[in-house]
Amino acid sequence: MSLLVVGSLALDTIETPFGKAERTLGGSATFISVAASYFTQPVRLVGVVGGDFPKKELEYFEEREIDLEGLQIKEDGKTFHWHGKYDYDLNTRESLVTELNVFADFDPIVPESFQKSQYLCLGNIHPALQKKVYEQMQSPKLVVADTMNFWIDGAYDELLEVLKHINVFIINDSEAREISKEANLFKAAKKIQELGPKIVIIKKGEHGALLFYENELFSAPAYPLESIYDPTGAGDSFAGGFIGYLAKTDDISFENMKRAVIFGSTIASFCVEKFSLEGTRELSHLKIKDRFNEFTRFSTFEPAEL
Amino acid sequence: MSLLVVGSLALDTIETPFGKAERTLGGSATFISVAASYFTQPVRLVGVVGGDFPKKELEYFEEREIDLEGLQIKEDGKTFHWHGKYDYDLNTRESLVTELNVFADFDPIVPESFQKSQYLCLGNIHPALQKKVYEQMQSPKLVVADTMNFWIDGAYDELLEVLKHINVFIINDSEAREISKEANLFKAAKKIQELGPKIVIIKKGEHGALLFYENELFSAPAYPLESIYDPTGAGDSFAGGFIGYLAKTDDISFENMKRAVIFGSTIASFCVEKFSLEGTRELSHLKIKDRFNEFTRFSTFEPAEL
Repeated sequence: MSLLVVGSLALDTIETPFGKAERTLGGSATFISVAASYFTQPVRLVGVVGGDFPKKELEYFEEREIDLEGLQIKEDGKTFHWHGKYDYDLNTRESLVTELNVFADFDPIVPESFQKSQYLCLGNIHPALQKKVYEQMQSPKLVVADTMNFWIDGAYDELLEVLKHINVFIINDSEAREISKEANLFKAAKKIQELGPKIVIIKKGEHGALLFYENELFSAPAYPLESIYDPTGAGDSFAGGFIGYLAKTDDISFENMKRAVIFGSTIASFCVEKFSLEGTRELSHLKIKDRFNEFTRFSTFEPAEL
Repeated sequence: MSLLVVGSLALDTIETPFGKAERTLGGSATFISVAASYFTQPVRLVGVVGGDFPKKELEYFEEREIDLEGLQIKEDGKTFHWHGKYDYDLNTRESLVTELNVFADFDPIVPESFQKSQYLCLGNIHPALQKKVYEQMQSPKLVVADTMNFWIDGAYDELLEVLKHINVFIINDSEAREISKEANLFKAAKKIQELGPKIVIIKKGEHGALLFYENELFSAPAYPLESIYDPTGAGDSFAGGFIGYLAKTDDISFENMKRAVIFGSTIASFCVEKFSLEGTRELSHLKIKDRFNEFTRFSTFEPAEL
């Protein structure tokens, strides 16, 4: 089924205690669409870059069957640039530089040929832009959105407006607590469901993820990673694997969404094993299937009698 | 199969933001043996109390088929008393009063009829006492031990000595990090395995538990509790449910130990729903089975194709 992804495209400089990558391909739409492309092709992309955006990265997108008809290339402008530095625990990061550049007045336009896409993933951008994209669509079957604390703090009302229109909201644990003002994640999810999305996914990093599907719950384990090199893009890779698998199977039942959460976790686990996009840039179906099966192995137990 | 439990018996005063219980039945051996008694009977107990220990609580133990032959009753002494107060997050607690009383010079003696017990649970007491109990046993099939940060700080060498002799070590995440000096729990577990126990269980509270069984891993979800009233005894209830199920089935394979972890999590989830022992005092097999099945429901997913 057709999938449309909107979000940021960036050239990131990333420092972690284990290394540094300069002006490397990043942004929420990049991580999401690359992750999704392992499940469904083409992936339709809406975003904006400047004239400095490397041609070879455009070619890479095309190799992965990412449809760039909705990509605005502002030849006179510069691509969004973020420079972040992570602490030793990789949980706290500092934004050293944030140059919005062409992203500052991004006006997302959904090409006519994209407007009937059945699956829509609103990556992490200003909620007002997410809404603008949604409004150009012709009744998509499933709308998934991501956000970040920056918008919860700075654009709360616009975020509430977006929440009314989406089906699946993907956030991390601290964002869930911040939006709901509830410390307990099970209560937090219920409160968020009341704001609109009947399906809420709370990512808990090394502790896995919780899928709240109407009144049902699924608790997904985390992949047992001994070393994390760079958490950048993990959340977006999760979202991309998740919606990519749903678009591929065109089945939004609870049972299938559980599998989508495991595929999302699978792609996210590959993402953090290397720097930036390196972890997901060149995956294979075999690698993805093997890791999915590993998740099965360490979360399955047999019935018992008493 | 025969099960022996050693640990503390206490009269606790507990304050949480939601209420207070005064001089109520507590202690590691209490929570463990009560939890285990839902799976296997009799449970053999080694411990010490004073003359003030309520007769009705001794009768309660007997009703639950907890064999008190190894319980020393010091008529002239007073039972171990702990008075703790929990903060609003229920994660941090303050010990307001700790009166060791008869526990101060507890000399655990395993009655001859208990020495051939096949399953041994060394509850949270001084590691030197755990070792003393172990040394009185005649080649038990499985030795499980618990500990706490207090002993990691204050009796590290004795704890290392105990670790050499046990098969299963149950600790929480912060204790695992403290013992191993490793932030990553997967690395921490490997380091602890090198200290002796080939099986390590790391409890993560609201995030479930990890079972490391030689080179295998099982990730157990947490029960989705919206309200926790009192965390006292949760870890001991986990240990009791875990070893009780193993003693009942007499099967220490990885597959069966996964189920034992789920039964441990089940009993711990009942424990924290009420004050002190109230959550596990009067359980039924039906309630336990129903909750075990709920765990299955929210952690199972079906295979997928790519």
